[in-house]
Amino acid sequence: MVKYAQSLDSTFGALADPTRRAILASLMLGEASISDLAGPHRMSLPAVMKHLRVLEDAGLVSQKKIGRTRFCRLAPAPLKTAEDWIAQYRVFWERTFDSLERFLSQHPSAEEEKEKKAWPPRKPNRNTPSR
Amino acid sequence: MVKYAQSLDSTFGALADPTRRAILASLMLGEASISDLAGPHRMSLPAVMKHLRVLEDAGLVSQKKIGRTRFCRLAPAPLKTAEDWIAQYRVFWERTFDSLERFLSQHPSAEEEKEKKAWPPRKPNRNTPSR
Repeated sequence: MVKYAQSLDSTFGALADPTRRAILASLMLGEASISDLAGPHRMSLPAVMKHLRVLEDAGLVSQKKIGRTRFCRLAPAPLKTAEDWIAQYRVFWERTFDSLERFLSQHPSAEEEKEKKAWPPRKPNRNTPSR
Repeated sequence: MVKYAQSLDSTFGALADPTRRAILASLMLGEASISDLAGPHRMSLPAVMKHLRVLEDAGLVSQKKIGRTRFCRLAPAPLKTAEDWIAQYRVFWERTFDSLERFLSQHPSAEEEKEKKAWPPRKPNRNTPSR
């Protein structure tokens, strides 16, 4: 249980940064070398490597060395664990959105009411060609 | 889009702590006062309030004051956004050919479009090992 909690800590912690999310998005396209991954960022290689280390510690990225080059690969398992955790709460947002939809269908907003006053129902225009 | 990224930063950042996840789990049972929430934790009230502030800043908890008591409530919308983000990667853990095909045939999501801007198309790396 402790291990599970630590895993969620490190997964969510790793995802709480736009550069790390961008690295994961890039790895959706396939394996990439560290310099490929660093390329688009205005960041030093050590800074990108630091982000990669966080992703690797969280188990979200795996690395292998071929010759002199290190290749990174997406390791999606912790994302499944994170999604499973969040999914426990699905009933709450589904309920919220359903009840919001119900509410909106019953109570037109102030904005809609204002629109109705500004734009009284248009009389059918007999000159309008039928479509 | 910046707002979306910041929102993901703060949601994932808020979830990266076991006390905060435990507070959210408590709020699954319904509204609770701050002292109710602090009860099960061996923590000072100010420490729990600090966690609640992080959750509130991330939009995951809302508070209202009734008399002298502050009640907290689960606000699930950011969890849906976080789940939607993670769900982009589902295909990688499901790893079925059908879902991969479906993924590739889909129009790029807003998130991918954003990532594309941040990450220009990578040149095929001839050194990339075939899988």
